[in-house]
Parts: sequence; structure tokens; C-alpha cells
Amino acid sequence: MRFFSDNAAPACPQVIAAIAAANTLDTAYDGDRWSQQLDGRFSDLFGTQVRVLWTPSGTSANCLALAALCQPHGAVICHRDAHINMDEAGAPGFYLLGAKLLLGEGPGAKLTPPAVEDILGAIRPDVHQVQAHALSITNATEYGLSYTPDEVAALGDLAKSRGLGFHMDGARFANAVAHSGADLADLTWRAGVDALSFGFVKNGGMGAEALVFFKPELADASLYRRKRAGLLASKGRYLAAQILAMLDDDVWLTNARAANAGAAMLARAAGDRLVYPVEANEVFLRVTPDEAASLRAPGFDFYDWAPGEVRLVTSWDQQEAAIKPLADAIAALP
Amino acid sequence: MRFFSDNAAPACPQVIAAIAAANTLDTAYDGDRWSQQLDGRFSDLFGTQVRVLWTPSGTSANCLALAALCQPHGAVICHRDAHINMDEAGAPGFYLLGAKLLLGEGPGAKLTPPAVEDILGAIRPDVHQVQAHALSITNATEYGLSYTPDEVAALGDLAKSRGLGFHMDGARFANAVAHSGADLADLTWRAGVDALSFGFVKNGGMGAEALVFFKPELADASLYRRKRAGLLASKGRYLAAQILAMLDDDVWLTNARAANAGAAMLARAAGDRLVYPVEANEVFLRVTPDEAASLRAPGFDFYDWAPGEVRLVTSWDQQEAAIKPLADAIAALP
Amino acid sequence: MRFFSDNAAPACPQVIAAIAAANTLDTAYDGDRWSQQLDGRFSDLFGTQVRVLWTPSGTSANCLALAALCQPHGAVICHRDAHINMDEAGAPGFYLLGAKLLLGEGPGAKLTPPAVEDILGAIRPDVHQVQAHALSITNATEYGLSYTPDEVAALGDLAKSRGLGFHMDGARFANAVAHSGADLADLTWRAGVDALSFGFVKNGGMGAEALVFFKPELADASLYRRKRAGLLASKGRYLAAQILAMLDDDVWLTNARAANAGAAMLARAAGDRLVYPVEANEVFLRVTPDEAASLRAPGFDFYDWAPGEVRLVTSWDQQEAAIKPLADAIAALP
Amino acid sequence: MRFFSDNAAPACPQVIAAIAAANTLDTAYDGDRWSQQLDGRFSDLFGTQVRVLWTPSGTSANCLALAALCQPHGAVICHRDAHINMDEAGAPGFYLLGAKLLLGEGPGAKLTPPAVEDILGAIRPDVHQVQAHALSITNATEYGLSYTPDEVAALGDLAKSRGLGFHMDGARFANAVAHSGADLADLTWRAGVDALSFGFVKNGGMGAEALVFFKPELADASLYRRKRAGLLASKGRYLAAQILAMLDDDVWLTNARAANAGAAMLARAAGDRLVYPVEANEVFLRVTPDEAASLRAPGFDFYDWAPGEVRLVTSWDQQEAAIKPLADAIAALP
Repeated sequence: MRFFSDNAAPACPQVIAAIAAANTLDTAYDGDRWSQQLDGRFSDLFGTQVRVLWTPSGTSANCLALAALCQPHGAVICHRDAHINMDEAGAPGFYLLGAKLLLGEGPGAKLTPPAVEDILGAIRPDVHQVQAHALSITNATEYGLSYTPDEVAALGDLAKSRGLGFHMDGARFANAVAHSGADLADLTWRAGVDALSFGFVKNGGMGAEALVFFKPELADASLYRRKRAGLLASKGRYLAAQILAMLDDDVWLTNARAANAGAAMLARAAGDRLVYPVEANEVFLRVTPDEAASLRAPGFDFYDWAPGEVRLVTSWDQQEAAIKPLADAIAALP
Repeated sequence: MRFFSDNAAPACPQVIAAIAAANTLDTAYDGDRWSQQLDGRFSDLFGTQVRVLWTPSGTSANCLALAALCQPHGAVICHRDAHINMDEAGAPGFYLLGAKLLLGEGPGAKLTPPAVEDILGAIRPDVHQVQAHALSITNATEYGLSYTPDEVAALGDLAKSRGLGFHMDGARFANAVAHSGADLADLTWRAGVDALSFGFVKNGGMGAEALVFFKPELADASLYRRKRAGLLASKGRYLAAQILAMLDDDVWLTNARAANAGAAMLARAAGDRLVYPVEANEVFLRVTPDEAASLRAPGFDFYDWAPGEVRLVTSWDQQEAAIKPLADAIAALP
Repeated sequence: MRFFSDNAAPACPQVIAAIAAANTLDTAYDGDRWSQQLDGRFSDLFGTQVRVLWTPSGTSANCLALAALCQPHGAVICHRDAHINMDEAGAPGFYLLGAKLLLGEGPGAKLTPPAVEDILGAIRPDVHQVQAHALSITNATEYGLSYTPDEVAALGDLAKSRGLGFHMDGARFANAVAHSGADLADLTWRAGVDALSFGFVKNGGMGAEALVFFKPELADASLYRRKRAGLLASKGRYLAAQILAMLDDDVWLTNARAANAGAAMLARAAGDRLVYPVEANEVFLRVTPDEAASLRAPGFDFYDWAPGEVRLVTSWDQQEAAIKPLADAIAALP
Repeated sequence: MRFFSDNAAPACPQVIAAIAAANTLDTAYDGDRWSQQLDGRFSDLFGTQVRVLWTPSGTSANCLALAALCQPHGAVICHRDAHINMDEAGAPGFYLLGAKLLLGEGPGAKLTPPAVEDILGAIRPDVHQVQAHALSITNATEYGLSYTPDEVAALGDLAKSRGLGFHMDGARFANAVAHSGADLADLTWRAGVDALSFGFVKNGGMGAEALVFFKPELADASLYRRKRAGLLASKGRYLAAQILAMLDDDVWLTNARAANAGAAMLARAAGDRLVYPVEANEVFLRVTPDEAASLRAPGFDFYDWAPGEVRLVTSWDQQEAAIKPLADAIAALP
């Protein structure tokens, strides 16, 4: 009955099993046999040489990525509704040592080249104004929209032409991929992405995210920053093992497809109440307060998001039977 | 055969069981039923009202504690060999936003009031020099010495009289308590300690430490700092559950006693090769390179620590049978 | 012929004379006889006990003020067009150690209680979002508007009720006072202002601004921050002497009145081309590119500010004879 | 009668004249005709292409230099008695965003390659320890010793071989050069120095120091850092004009020779009371408290520096007649 967050879901059985299997003697920090596999496994997955750091949270993955792409006296362009701006307690200011976020506009938290150019065009190229060093997008966005490879590439081209590093916050990257079916390389490094926060926790993980550097040299200083930020778990094998378990047999994709399927069912029920197309596992509905109350009455749990708007999030573990009652309730709204 | 780090040991069965038991639906971050128990459980343990934050690492626990006690333009007094100075990659500089560490002397990484007064006495009270805001000690120390309650209280009195916050890095707090049998209150808040990093990971945990504030009001801003540092796990229940499982039935104390017993067995075998008294689960031995090589030949694994000196660390999971072969080998050194 | 910035003007003769008079042996830093007079002289001026720090720039005065009012994990509310947001190269991010600026709206860079409440109302009071710690306004604003004491007091009441520190960037405070004739106390501390950056450089000074703390206790840590930021000039007497010379005989007010008179003359010529009422020494005009070119042809120098809009700034040293040709040229535009 | 600091001396007449001459209309910040000459003038002086930024203080010059040479997660090696460690209120921690100082030993605050190698040799090359990024020496040192070009080159070679940036704090660079007569190029860039804080204030300036980058590309980001730190004076012409005036006719060298001559006279009187050879304008004497009191009785003003040790500093404006009475009094000590 809970649709308030995919963080509420338990970890998937493969993750729990992997943790138990990793519960043995090994080297500390990231020298263990699990952590040592990450670079290779993700290089295979993306079809290019990458370097990967596990981190215990999405916020830390995002901020380590940005710290590799933006100097303290620079700025990161992101959407006004980006998680890094709205819900990370100012972590970018901390990790980037005072760098600034420059906020762009666009429906559904999606950035476009014109929106980025609006920001860039307003910056005088002198020392009195903070210059942009990087661009960050979220895929799927905070409102559940997915970028196509072409959309990412258009932003990547712009970033490259303006000397900006390019980061993708992929807290729900799996959901975006499950929706679009895009080729992983096309959606990331071939489109100019330098660093990807590849989320696992919302998708059935327990407490490990993967920070993927498509420019491998960016990892060097990042390893120091990870330790310096207190993120280098002394028993890192438990984090690496979770991630590897979700790469095995494409568990990450299977889980995301399940969550997306739930959202799609809700979307079909919602019809023109949808605020945005549903392209991941989040559904935003236009409902009156009374309608919201009627949906909550039987026990469905979700957040109000804006006046007259609620957010429903589905999770990897919700089968059709768990979704259908809410879908029916939505369809039955007058 | 491994004695290089207590981080190498697996998590204890109670922790693994607790994680499995927590693998269910609950609220995200620290709103879950496990996280919500921490304040009460630790308040009971210490016999005073405390507030407790879980963190994913000892470095982050230490740094959040220090950030609550020292302003960015101040300094923290610690021992030259303190973990915060030697092995945290400059994390205090990051978390304390440029504050300084002032390094004291003393055998076995143990600070005494005169050592602290030496530092304080060398600071001119003007704006040109960084003023001390806090004092940090490690208990058990980085060389395996334990502070008595009286020793802590003498430092606590000094700290109070000079207006310094007082932090205890307890990465091996359990080992210190298991050794001294000290009353927990006497060893901490009654002795003037404001914040304790209570370590669980080295003692059989998987990936959660407890930051205990004996001045509860210090927790308020720390909650923001924890999130801002990317340390607020979105599924925090797995961290809280580990800690609670180790508080149940005094698992933390049982584990520490086991590790200490192993170290004591090695100490007895070492005789006057001991560099320091063994008061926790670390043993430092004077050995020649040839002797070190002969100990390593059968497979015992440990670090060289200084010229002519090696470090042996025992763990919660090492039974007498696992220790005795090394003890015998040490005793058999010519 | 120059109207591009009041920073272009020379220092007034009283300042040059004061520097020459201070060119003698004295104690270093701020222990000299000039620096020691600042607290008393400004306390007399404002009719309350204040503490005052000289700083070499307006940016540093603003940032030291804000650092005293906002913790690193907090935010400062200011107008989108505030100098601290637009033209200080991210200095608030540096001095406030990663704190955030939250940007408000309003014509002429002027904040109102509803604009501030809009920002406050959008912040969830949880650790995921950065909480507001302080409010900063600019008086006169970046578009030459002056706040009345009542307007400041309304913001001060709001700040107090929400626990926000309250800073006034007074880079052109003298011009605001010269325009409104407001009582200095009413315009500042009685209206709830905690710290004022009292600008002298644009008003005929050479290189010294005064940071005035109406809560004297805020100065203590600020003295450390000033030194730590490399702002504590070793021969501070030259900075203090400038400021004192401009307080003598109300030079600061005389200079500001002269600059304002120039702007007023331009405003009268401009008629309905004015974008904003002229309440200080800045004039914003609606002109076409061709009109701007025709004004520049005889040598008048000024900045384009926005499409179809130019900025004219008058200075303390511009007599009527220096202004009239431009005023005539504006009046003669078709 | 004052020998406590060369900061106590007034500005030399050439500086005062230059300020008066610069008191005219010009562009703001560093676009003026004086600031624009700095690169060329210093390039001529050093015989290589350099870029130069004025700053209002030695602390800020040092810290901008170090920020260009050391990343926030790195460390700067300096002497334990270096000004950046002892007397800058933690400014390096602020400007370098939490980077660390690693403190070396050596008589007279002078670093040697073995002292630097001791520090480097103690750093494990792993992410748990802060790695050295830069080396900073002070010339003349805080105890008035001067480096020869060969001594600097030996440190420069070591720095280069270990990938360290190399900074020289030249608060009393002029005094060092006046003493050694060294070729400026040999003493700096040919010896591997990347950035020099070239001090003017203690040597007869009023409030401007020159930060000289021998690697011109380091200036780019430094310009942003200077503004971001609130150091970009809006009327920068007054700073540039001071520096240019002291370059004209080698005023900087003449002034330093005068100060050194005074110190040399004191040194001759002091004989074996000297703690260090006198190689600049500072004299450290072994005296008992009674002897110090007897020197102070007639009005000579100086600092106690350590038990049984006092510091005498001479200035550019002290003629023989001003020095001789103190020299006589020292010589007359029993």
C-alpha cells in the first residue's frame, strides 16, 4: 500500500544473498576481491574502459562526480528541480567547496540545450561572475521523464563546445534504461557524459551506489576525495558485492522493469490526470485534496507534491497485485 | 592467519541476522523503527540522555563530532599519531572547513594534560594564531593503550577549564572497555566527554558506527551536516539494525573481550618484545626483519609498523586455536 | 564624460590628506590609534554601541558579515540581482564555506516581506533541504532604489520572527541616506539590522570599507575570520584613517549628496525613459541601440545593462558642469 | 626607538607620491593603466615572462599562490616556524579548502632537502594519507636567514622530482636579495620556484604585495580566486601604483639595503649573543630578562621571542643615527 518512495522497499534477495556470501575474511577498504571487479564489470557493461567507485549514497556519488568536474570557483548548471539542488541539503556546496549551482528551467525537470544556453548566455566572461564548469542532468528526471540518447547527445555537444564537464545523476538510471531500451553507451559516454551516478539503492540495493567515470583519469583524485569525505567503508566488500549481484543476470534491469510496469499500470488508470508522461517509476497526478484523501482512505500512502498534485512511486518488489488496487481506485475517481 | 587488521574480519552472525530481519518495508532515511530506537538504547547504556547518529564509517563519525565542537577558524588538539591526523586523508580539514589539527606528543599515542598544556601554552591569544576549540583523544589509542576514567577526567577538566569541546574517537572503544572494565559513564560523560565515536565495524559490525552526543543539543546541526556530507543512507534501517543487534545481549562487549583475549595471548608470548602494554586488541612487537620474515613464512599476515616494529591485530572471530600458532611462533623466536 | 562606475572616481582630497597624515610610525594591524577609534566613532554615529572592522573591499565586508550570520550548512536569502549573487565571483560560497544563496524576486532588486516569505514557504523543515539562516538586502539597491526605515523594519520583523540574521549591503548606503534623509538608527539597528557593510570606496574613499556590527558580540569571531581571509592589512592605519576622514564633517554625506544630485539632474532629463525611480546615484534608461550610440558619440561612457537599457552612475566628484552635457544630450533624444 | 616590526614603519615617500599621482579617474579593479603594467615590469625584472597579481596583504599573496599549487585534498610542506603555519590564523586551511600543512624542521626556519625528504618519506602513497602537492619556503626566513640560489635550486630539484609545486614566501624577499646580491632569476624561476610572494609592505610600501607567477598559466584561475576572496580592490590603481613606484629606480632594493644595514650594525654589536647569522633585517639575541629590561629602559621597543631570546627588526627608514644608540646599548651589556 506504499507509494511514497522507492527507498521504502526492501533490498532484493540477490543483494541479501550477496552480502551473506561476502561475509568472510578479506582485505579492508576497496582492496577486496569484490571491489576489484567493479572496473571490469562496468567496462564490459558500457563497452568502454571505465573506472568505478562505490559510495554509500546517491548524494555522495553525485557530489564526488561533480567535484571531479567543477573547481571550487566554478559553477554547475542543473535544473531548478534537480535533486542536487532541492534535496541534498547543500551537499554540492560542501563537496565542491563553495562552488555554485546555476538553475535552469524546463518542464518535468528536464534540461534542453536552449535552457542551458540561457544560463550560459547570462554569464559575463569576467572574474566578477562565477563561470560554468559543468552540466548535470538527472536521468530519469525527478519527475520521471527519460532522456533519449539524442537528447543527451545534444546536451553533450553543447557541454563539449563550452568546455563543461557533463554529469548524469542516475539515481533511477535503471528505470530510464528499462523505459527507453536505449543502448547504454549511446545514452552515456557516446553522448558525452563524463561521469554517471549509477543508482542501485532505490532499485533493490541496500546501501551502495556506483560512480562510473567514463574518463578514467577522473577517478584518481576522486579516490582521495572519497576517503577524505569519510565515504571509504572499511569493509567495502559488502558494498561491492551488492552492486555485482545486481549486475549479474541483469537484476538491475529486471528490477527496474518491474517498477516501471507498476507505474505504467497506474498511468493507464490515471488518463488525463497525468502531469507528465510516465517514463520511469514515478507517477504525478492531478487530484483535488478530497480525491487525495479518498485515495488515502483505504491505506494508500504517498506524498503531496504541489498544490493539487501528488506523487506515486512504484518499486521493484511490487507485483501487479500490489498495484492494481490503487490503479482501480484512481480509475474510479469521479 | 591474518593479523593485519580487525577490518578484515567478517561481520558477526548477529549483525547478518539483523540485516536480514530489517529487510522489510519501512520509512526511508532515519525515520524507521530501528533508527528511532538509537537514542533510547544508548541513553540506557550510558545512564544519561544522549542523542545518537549512525554513520557509515569511523572517519565520518569522528569528523561530524569534531565539526560540532570546533569552528572552521579554530583547531582541534590531538595526538600526533591520532587516526584523525594520520589515516583519514585530511577528512578533518574537509569536514571542519579548514580548521587545524594541533599535534601533541606522548608514548603510545596517549595524551596527558601536560602534553595538552604544552600546546595550549604555545598559542598566543591573538587573531594571528589559530586558537584551540576542541580536544580529541582515541580510546583505545592507535597503539592499543586504554585510558582510565581518571585519565579521561583529568583531560576533561582541562578541556572544560579552557573552553574546549572534548571528543573521544572510540573506533576500539569496546576493546578499551573490555580491558578496563570501566563504568561507561565514568569513562565518558562524567569525565567531560561531549561526543563519542562508538565503533562497531572493527568489532564485528558490517558498516555502521554510532556517533553519541552527550550534549544532546549538538545533534541538531549535526543532522544537517550528516545529510550535507552524503552520509544519510536512504535505507538507514540496515545501519541502525546492525548497531542494535550488537547492543543486544552485550554482543559488542563479548566480541571485544574475544579480540582482547587473543591479543593477551600474543602479549604473553611476546614478553619483553612488547613495545607497549597490551590493553586492547593490538600488539606491537620489536622484531628484526629476519624475525618478521620467519613469522610470515608459515602464512601469518601483519603490517610492519616502524623500523624493527610490527603490528598484530586480533579480531572478534579469532578463537584461541587461531591465535595459538602465532603465539607459539613468537615465543619460539630466538 | 564617464558614467560607467563610481569606482572610476578618484579618492576625495580629505582621504588623500588623511593617508598622508597617517604616514607615520604606529603599531601594526589594527592596534594603531586610527583603528582604535572606529568603534567609538561609529557608535556615536548610530547612537548605539557597535563594533567595526575595516576591510579592503565591499565583497569582503559583505562576506564577513554573512559568515557571522549564517552557518556553512545554512542559506542566505537575497535578491536575484543582489551584488553578492551576481558580482562577487561566488565569494559567499567561499566565505560561508558552501552555504547557499536563495534568490528572491522583486522590481529594482528590492526585497519585500512577501518575496522573502515565498522563499521561506518553499523550504521543507527537514534535513534534506537547506534552511535559511540569514537575510541580506542592498541599500541603495543595485538598481538605485532606497529602502525606507519602515520597509527595512518590516523585513527586520520577519527576519526576527523566523530566526534569521539580517545584513544590509551598504555599498551605496551613503547615497541611500542622502536620498531619504532617514535617521541612521531607524534605517539600521532599530529596524533589526545586525550587520551593515558601510561603503566608502565608491563614495570617495580609496580602499577601505567599514563592517558595522550592531550586535557587538558578532565581531569576536569575525576578527579571526578577517585575519584568516588575508584581509588584516599589516598597516591598517591607512584604512582606518580614510574612514575617519570621511566621517569627519560628514564628508560621506556631502559626497553622496553630490553624486545623488548628478543622478537627479539626469533623471529629470530622462523623463519617462527611466526604468526605476532614481533614489541614489544610479540611473537606468530605456534607450534603443541607436540612441545609446548617439549618446556615446560625444564621449559619454556607460554600460549597457540589458537589452534596450543602459546604466549611468554619477560620482561624488562630478559637478553640475560635468553632468549637464549628458543631461542635455538625453533630453535631446528624439 | 622601535624595533618590534618593520610593519610599524611608515610608507616611503615614493609610495605616497605615487598614490597621489594615481588619484585620478581610471577604470575600476585591475583594468587601469598601472595594474596593466605589472606583468611587463616584473617580466623585465626577472628576465622571463611572468604574470603578476597585486593583493592587499602577504597572507593573501601566500594563500593565492598555494591555492594554485595544491589541491584541497593535498598538503603543503613548509617549515614548522613558517609564517603560513604560525601567523596567518589558519588562512592556508581556508584558501586551500582544507588542505594540510606538513611541518619540517631545521635551524632558523630554513628548510633543506633532507628535511623535506623526511616528510615525504613518512607519507604512505595511499588514499588514507594526505599526499604532498607543494613546497613552500620563506626567503628571507622568519629568523632572518637568506637562501642562496644553490640552496633554492636543490629544493627546486627535489620538488620537481616529486611533482611538487614550489612557492617562495618573500615577505622579506627584498632583504634577502639585498643581502645575498643573488641574481633574481637564479634565486627564483631558474631554481624551480613557481610562484613568489614579493613583499613590498614591510619594505616601505603601504598596502600592496605582488604575487608573481613564473608559470604564467597559474594566474588564470588565481584571478578568479582573488575576486572570490574579496581581494580585488575596486580601485586597484592605488595598489599597482605603489608597487610600480618601488620598482622604479630600484627603490625596493635601496630600502632593503638600508634596513639590512641597520641589522648588520646591531649584529656587529651583538657578537656571540646572536642566535642566527644576520642575513636580512632581523636580529635575534640571547639576553637574560634583566638584560632585556635594561635595553628597554631607555625606550627601545622589541618583542621577546622565546625564553632568553629577543627579536629586533630594523626598517627602511632607520638611519645609522637611529640604530646606533641600540647598538651601543647592546655592546654595553655586561
